[in-house]
Amino acid sequence: MFKEALETAVNGTGGYAALLMDFEGIPLESYLGQESPFDIEVVGAEISVLVKQIQRAAEMLEAGGTEEVSFKSEQMTTLVRVINQDYFAAMTLSPQGNAGRGRFELRMLASKVRDELS
Amino acid sequence: MFKEALETAVNGTGGYAALLMDFEGIPLESYLGQESPFDIEVVGAEISVLVKQIQRAAEMLEAGGTEEVSFKSEQMTTLVRVINQDYFAAMTLSPQGNAGRGRFELRMLASKVRDELS
Repeated sequence: MFKEALETAVNGTGGYAALLMDFEGIPLESYLGQESPFDIEVVGAEISVLVKQIQRAAEMLEAGGTEEVSFKSEQMTTLVRVINQDYFAAMTLSPQGNAGRGRFELRMLASKVRDELS
Repeated sequence: MFKEALETAVNGTGGYAALLMDFEGIPLESYLGQESPFDIEVVGAEISVLVKQIQRAAEMLEAGGTEEVSFKSEQMTTLVRVINQDYFAAMTLSPQGNAGRGRFELRMLASKVRDELS
């Protein structure tokens, strides 16, 4: 069920890979699409640290809960959707990939898996 | 010149505010559009810390230089465009704001001010 939802999101976007992970950096499930130069679980572990720092900054600014984060670097775009206080979904794609479509797919994915992860 | 470029970006997006800042957290120029519950310079200072952490993670992953970052929280969307190793531009907008347009405006802004800031 998780694998299928990740597969739908990656294939709908043409992304490298996607995963569900908890904020301790423990992967729950991942799906690899096209050949990627990056290990999605290593990327996910970095994200888990960064998103916690972003959440703390948003709380400090009284901007409310963090819902989405994205990072675009020269070699990779990374999209993150917070599912609940314990889990997030993330997808990596090439810098030329369709990030707008990726954000849409991650929102769909999050609404599909939220009940199972609460 | 910087103020005018920031004004164009904010008004083209309908954002709250935008600024140019260095990675030490020192604001170079800012422009306030519509009434905002957030102080753009306080937001900028938080961004300067977060983007440095994101840059370090991207380097560790060998994903190259960081170009764009965005954070969406319940009360505010924050868009960041790295201009060069010393400066970045950031814009805040409401969560219902047009982030796609905001990213476009920040890219235009960055190309306008890059020569002056190098």
